[in-house]
Amino acid sequence: MKIIIVGGVAGGMSAATRLRRLDEAAEIIVFERGHYVSFANCGLPYFVGGVIRDRDDLLLQTPESLGSRFGLDVRIDTEVVRIDRVAQTVSVRNLLTGAETVEGYDRLVLAAGATARSGASEDGTIPTHTLRTVDDVDHITAVLASKGAASAVVIGGGFIGLEAVENLVLRGVHVTLVQRGPQIFTPLDAEMAAPVLDRLRERGVDVRLSTTVSSASAPGVVTLSDGTTVPADLVIDASGVRPDLTLAERAGLRIGENGGIWVDGTQATSDPLIFAVGDGVEKTDAVDGSGALVTMAGLANRHGRSVADSIAGTPEQATPALGTGIVGIFGLTVALVGWNEKRLVAAGRAHRIAHTHPANHAGYYPGAQGMSIKLLIDAETDAILGAQIVGGAGVDKRIDVLAVAMAAGLSASALTRLELAYAPQYASAKDPINQLGYVADNLAQGASQSLQWHELDAARTNGAVLVDVRSAGEFAAGSIPGALNVSLDDLRARQDELPRVPLIVHCQVGQRGHTAARILTQHGFDVRNLDGGYRTWLAGTSSIIVPPTAERVLA
Amino acid sequence: MKIIIVGGVAGGMSAATRLRRLDEAAEIIVFERGHYVSFANCGLPYFVGGVIRDRDDLLLQTPESLGSRFGLDVRIDTEVVRIDRVAQTVSVRNLLTGAETVEGYDRLVLAAGATARSGASEDGTIPTHTLRTVDDVDHITAVLASKGAASAVVIGGGFIGLEAVENLVLRGVHVTLVQRGPQIFTPLDAEMAAPVLDRLRERGVDVRLSTTVSSASAPGVVTLSDGTTVPADLVIDASGVRPDLTLAERAGLRIGENGGIWVDGTQATSDPLIFAVGDGVEKTDAVDGSGALVTMAGLANRHGRSVADSIAGTPEQATPALGTGIVGIFGLTVALVGWNEKRLVAAGRAHRIAHTHPANHAGYYPGAQGMSIKLLIDAETDAILGAQIVGGAGVDKRIDVLAVAMAAGLSASALTRLELAYAPQYASAKDPINQLGYVADNLAQGASQSLQWHELDAARTNGAVLVDVRSAGEFAAGSIPGALNVSLDDLRARQDELPRVPLIVHCQVGQRGHTAARILTQHGFDVRNLDGGYRTWLAGTSSIIVPPTAERVLA
Repeated sequence: MKIIIVGGVAGGMSAATRLRRLDEAAEIIVFERGHYVSFANCGLPYFVGGVIRDRDDLLLQTPESLGSRFGLDVRIDTEVVRIDRVAQTVSVRNLLTGAETVEGYDRLVLAAGATARSGASEDGTIPTHTLRTVDDVDHITAVLASKGAASAVVIGGGFIGLEAVENLVLRGVHVTLVQRGPQIFTPLDAEMAAPVLDRLRERGVDVRLSTTVSSASAPGVVTLSDGTTVPADLVIDASGVRPDLTLAERAGLRIGENGGIWVDGTQATSDPLIFAVGDGVEKTDAVDGSGALVTMAGLANRHGRSVADSIAGTPEQATPALGTGIVGIFGLTVALVGWNEKRLVAAGRAHRIAHTHPANHAGYYPGAQGMSIKLLIDAETDAILGAQIVGGAGVDKRIDVLAVAMAAGLSASALTRLELAYAPQYASAKDPINQLGYVADNLAQGASQSLQWHELDAARTNGAVLVDVRSAGEFAAGSIPGALNVSLDDLRARQDELPRVPLIVHCQVGQRGHTAARILTQHGFDVRNLDGGYRTWLAGTSSIIVPPTAERVLA
Repeated sequence: MKIIIVGGVAGGMSAATRLRRLDEAAEIIVFERGHYVSFANCGLPYFVGGVIRDRDDLLLQTPESLGSRFGLDVRIDTEVVRIDRVAQTVSVRNLLTGAETVEGYDRLVLAAGATARSGASEDGTIPTHTLRTVDDVDHITAVLASKGAASAVVIGGGFIGLEAVENLVLRGVHVTLVQRGPQIFTPLDAEMAAPVLDRLRERGVDVRLSTTVSSASAPGVVTLSDGTTVPADLVIDASGVRPDLTLAERAGLRIGENGGIWVDGTQATSDPLIFAVGDGVEKTDAVDGSGALVTMAGLANRHGRSVADSIAGTPEQATPALGTGIVGIFGLTVALVGWNEKRLVAAGRAHRIAHTHPANHAGYYPGAQGMSIKLLIDAETDAILGAQIVGGAGVDKRIDVLAVAMAAGLSASALTRLELAYAPQYASAKDPINQLGYVADNLAQGASQSLQWHELDAARTNGAVLVDVRSAGEFAAGSIPGALNVSLDDLRARQDELPRVPLIVHCQVGQRGHTAARILTQHGFDVRNLDGGYRTWLAGTSSIIVPPTAERVLA
């Protein structure tokens, strides 16, 4: 059996090495158009920032090491330019010599990944860099070194954009982050992204929302869509990627509804002799089974291994993609899984929401760090549809727990019953995940009725009265305009002071609000608890952004 | 409805506060024989060590705060001495005045917890302290302060024993840890406990295995069972706890097979008006459904809440207990869930084992820390039966992921498909949990045959030859006596040098060994891979302890 693999990084190389372990006799050729295989894509931004100091650390394998250990024929600087499906051959160009040759295959694996989508100016006057390959970071670090670059513009505040911003700031570069829409890091909902924006600005990043780049007005100066200019010795375009369909389209392979190469559950394309994996391929969404472009390294590696099993004759069906993701930005960890509220609303899917603000471990043990969690729940089935977490230590643990719960089909209420490891330096006896389950369970059982931050204004317009059950001191330190303040501990005694209209109670994070709602409900009031309390309301309302003028940002 | 709760800490207080939220009208009385309610049990050792500096931080609630917020009638220094089930009353003694009164109940909740089991000398000459209550730590810190105590003996190397040792060492106290059996921290299997023993001794703890305390030979000196004496200004007995059955037995309630109060899935005892929760109660084991004494705070809290639901009329069935646990010891995190190998062997349950030694995050990102994982798998169903992890950062995350997978009934092979959050500072593209799944999947599919460290001698006696596939440099730095060394990268070329007898291959951690086994198997050899490689073998063989003589320990 002769297997040709196009692309020698995550998905392609996982397929190649697994294939060898399954079949000593197979002929396996890997073509990589770049100069490097099996490199650490996800480490590239951190090499720019000097966090990873040794460039060799990015290069996990070489053609030689893969040859000696796995008997792989790895050819770099070599591009596959055409597939002849009838003849079962590929045309291959040596990018150094230009020479073209033809190789036959029994099975073909496409793992060419995705290419950077350009968010740069359409007039083409701005030279931009992308951040996807070893060559890219070599170019970026060369610019930074040669010009003694003092300023940069990063286009796009997604995963790679945030990592690029952090690492440029670590190198002492002044960074302007240009975001096309009104919100940074759009995988999150607005109120969850607010702390990310705060953190960026705290660290001196000039964030421009609802803005694009227009043109290069002078060397080292870029004009933005609002007419302002910003210094830019370097422009990094991190506005996104799109599947590289060049080969697949030319070969007439089926393309999926979202623009990725279509594959079945065994990673086979519409041609049963051709398989595809990685960022170029459409996955199946775990929430609704639709096609989904999820460009995560974990999936590429896993599906690469699956391709090998498929080719070796023991195919397994791929698990739908949750889209679990995580990014660190200036000490803040931002993590998510599944769908967000925006997407559920757009799809018209009935859902419940729970916001909590727990500490990562017992508060009485020193060093506890806070986090904010948002859980999206199917209103009919109580299934977990998605989650977002932003905070300090322990965020990565909780998103993984939720990703496993979601993959395993546990209900939101079942989170109460998870038996998670507890000692005071690691967690709380009621872990943040258990607490989240309690909130969800109370919603599911009807023991609690909640209201979202963005529903508050309409409810009050309709006559509801807002009651802040925090202490007088907390109230004085900052409150929602127009709220009454009756502290929880006084609530039973002072309930007669409250009007007999629909009430919305709130505290700082939602927990005392729940107790207050339970008390008042049982005393005959119509009560809802403001989900996530003052803290979520504050984040949400601060996220309703008026695009800042140049003066406000520069001030 | 009048509800009496006996015990005002984790389980009892969770029941009380939830009951109030469910029922504003209920009369709820909590009797606590100690002077404190709702205190931070799990923080007590850290107050001894000065990690938690403010004693008030241990006291999460007071009778007053619980009264004002939850309308609870909390009576401290008050012991329930008798239950009259027919009359539905309890006899209550005020421990300060000695006065006895009688209170009627509609529902009774027993949450008196467990009492310390004594591992101290039977002759009673050694005054020991336990470490379960605020009073206990007050006594211990008083001894440490008044005597300027320089030495301590801790009896028992379980959860509390290890925490006591660490915190005494933090205070500059010289500690002797006396362990009855030949292994420290017996919830782990021997090879997993070896690094714990190493860490204790590195930090100067005098660990005495297979030893008990005999008598006090002089003030501040304790004689051990081997006849040696050790300095002991303070003796802490952390040899374990047993359910406090005083009330339950007197009242004729059913006791479970393992000596805890029997309850059904709704936490009801054999008297339907009496419920019980917490360390005094027998749980249901998640692996085999048997009765289990699992004394974890998380379960006490959760079941306390369930009791309230049961009493309020919406009972839910308790989830069987996994026994998830975690402890930190001198920077090492030790975590476990489910059954260990010892217990599976004792029960005659067919199982598979996988050992791995991954890093917590991508190796190319600075600061990666190692961990060792052991997974126990049902040989017939591929179900996860248990796991143990010892290492640095990220151990708590992985045990939680495994606990959720186990609770959700995911198979070991399904761990390959978990979509865990990856960025290089948090994890690897193939997370340690995915890698563990790959090992398990290869075992399940028969793509890999492994051998445990403790099976090696017998296999070699029966004629198997051991082949170390690490590099010559690794081999020279330390190897298993009598192993041949053929490095993986030379294996295809040098296979003819290997004898045609059963081979056992091994590398450092098991991964290259797997590749070697795949190569040799396909070339017709009979091969097994030494599970966990040299590292697990070294830990396992070092764990076969000859009880140290006094000279060896003191040298």
